[in-house]
Amino acid sequence: MKALHWDGSTLSLRSDVPDPEPREGEALVKVRLAGICSTDLQIFKGYMGFQGIPGHEFVGEVEAGPEEWKGKRVVAGINFACRTCEWCRSGRDRHCPTRTVMGILGADGAFAERMRVPVANLHEVPDAIPDEVAVFAEPLAAAFRIEEQVSLPADAEVIVLGDGKLGLLCAQVQHARGRRVTVVGRHPKKLALAAAVGMHTAVADEFKPRQVDMVVEATGSEKGLELAMACTRPLGILVLKSTVAAEHKVSLAPVVINELQLVGSRCGSFPPALEVLAEERIDVRPMISDVFPLDRGVEAVEKAAARGTLKVLLRA
Amino acid sequence: MKALHWDGSTLSLRSDVPDPEPREGEALVKVRLAGICSTDLQIFKGYMGFQGIPGHEFVGEVEAGPEEWKGKRVVAGINFACRTCEWCRSGRDRHCPTRTVMGILGADGAFAERMRVPVANLHEVPDAIPDEVAVFAEPLAAAFRIEEQVSLPADAEVIVLGDGKLGLLCAQVQHARGRRVTVVGRHPKKLALAAAVGMHTAVADEFKPRQVDMVVEATGSEKGLELAMACTRPLGILVLKSTVAAEHKVSLAPVVINELQLVGSRCGSFPPALEVLAEERIDVRPMISDVFPLDRGVEAVEKAAARGTLKVLLRA
Repeated sequence: MKALHWDGSTLSLRSDVPDPEPREGEALVKVRLAGICSTDLQIFKGYMGFQGIPGHEFVGEVEAGPEEWKGKRVVAGINFACRTCEWCRSGRDRHCPTRTVMGILGADGAFAERMRVPVANLHEVPDAIPDEVAVFAEPLAAAFRIEEQVSLPADAEVIVLGDGKLGLLCAQVQHARGRRVTVVGRHPKKLALAAAVGMHTAVADEFKPRQVDMVVEATGSEKGLELAMACTRPLGILVLKSTVAAEHKVSLAPVVINELQLVGSRCGSFPPALEVLAEERIDVRPMISDVFPLDRGVEAVEKAAARGTLKVLLRA
Repeated sequence: MKALHWDGSTLSLRSDVPDPEPREGEALVKVRLAGICSTDLQIFKGYMGFQGIPGHEFVGEVEAGPEEWKGKRVVAGINFACRTCEWCRSGRDRHCPTRTVMGILGADGAFAERMRVPVANLHEVPDAIPDEVAVFAEPLAAAFRIEEQVSLPADAEVIVLGDGKLGLLCAQVQHARGRRVTVVGRHPKKLALAAAVGMHTAVADEFKPRQVDMVVEATGSEKGLELAMACTRPLGILVLKSTVAAEHKVSLAPVVINELQLVGSRCGSFPPALEVLAEERIDVRPMISDVFPLDRGVEAVEKAAARGTLKVLLRA
């Protein structure tokens, strides 16, 4: 089959990759659409030391596996857990210490025609959700993760730092929850998407810090973290949403003095994401910058990394 | 009166300081004993840009003020709040935005014969608690603050990084709560105090990181923060307890990947601290390294800053 392959230094399209052979408890999924995420771009800079087929956002169709899944349109959680350890048995399988992670750690991913996925990770996609929307289920679940972790009143004020893909999705979830959201970013076109659905926006260079109940840091930059601390009110919540590879040089004194709560936030559960997508309460389509065929995957990654781009999709 | 004075570059004993004149709602407190804290030592390196009479740990006696307080032996909360703003009215007065802080920010402190203290901040000291124990009420309240902020099962495993004054007090509180505590430090004599009451201890250089439910970072060092992240289990709690002035250069990626909860922790409420001191459930006396008269305050501060010293007290 065809697949994009990252060997640690070069990304290339390979046509001779053997078809994956699903094991016990796994399904063979034919990928329909895959999304390029900032984490993928980090991987191509060395993050996680991953080698293999990247890609962890997708919608596909089960070709082989348990009878009840065959032919179903699916998305999937990216953490492939052992399902037997203490972590898994207590429902915290996304932190299973021996897990592999789709396209990120020890498991091939979705930038391919086919992939193996544990059946336990599959979620059926409701008919109401078209492919180009369903492919956002994974990053939207990550945006919903914040809701599983923090407790905030409905009318709380929230600042999202970063107008990238994940920042905009986090902002949309907070906005859908009824919170007063301001998105701070560097791209007028991206900010316009937030403004179009009624959020406040600010261009980073003109933004005057003020303190709010919760700040979501989705820039992954040193300056972003500093600004985030300055914008979080005493006893407030600062959500770290970027798995940045870079080192920060910052004083954490404001965290102690203002007794902030910093919350690292990664993957979320899919049902709330699929629900809002099915009910069209969040519209992700304006975030699609481009769709490339898998054959032009290397070009698609270049496009995804270019300034101003939001979501680039790959059609397998 | 006599007082220690910090002018921003030099600490000196002054004998000609005018006696403080308490205003409406304040008491005049005659200081009996004051404790030198690491925050004081930070102030003498420029922290907070404070100038005036430092000191925020004390036990004293009310000389003038409301009738019901006169003659009472007291300790006091260090955040002098406005008592009228939204923060104060909602019980979060320790974060009042216009607060002054005893000996740290805009208010003279306890390294003096007398001081002004808002009556609202006073706590009467039970007779069962001798002066040299009562003077620990403030830092012990700070150690109890963690209990107000986090929720952990009684048998949780806790690592305290740092065998300094605050580290040992935090460890004692966790130990008193029934948790399995390991103190990691660099001073065999300080670690011995933790071991003497049944805690596990480890010398930093020999300590092999392992992941536990909660880590209390009380070293204030870059290495300490890195070690703390490595020792906090996924979804675990990392308490930042040092108001360090220094910048850290660290990657916060582990916070996101393991979805850690970082909690900045500063001052606590006094009643739980006074209760355990009165019931002698925590013995702080072994932590007293030395007692100096106020006249030798400059020397006392030098002693407090010397390696291996724990608590140095000033007798006014």
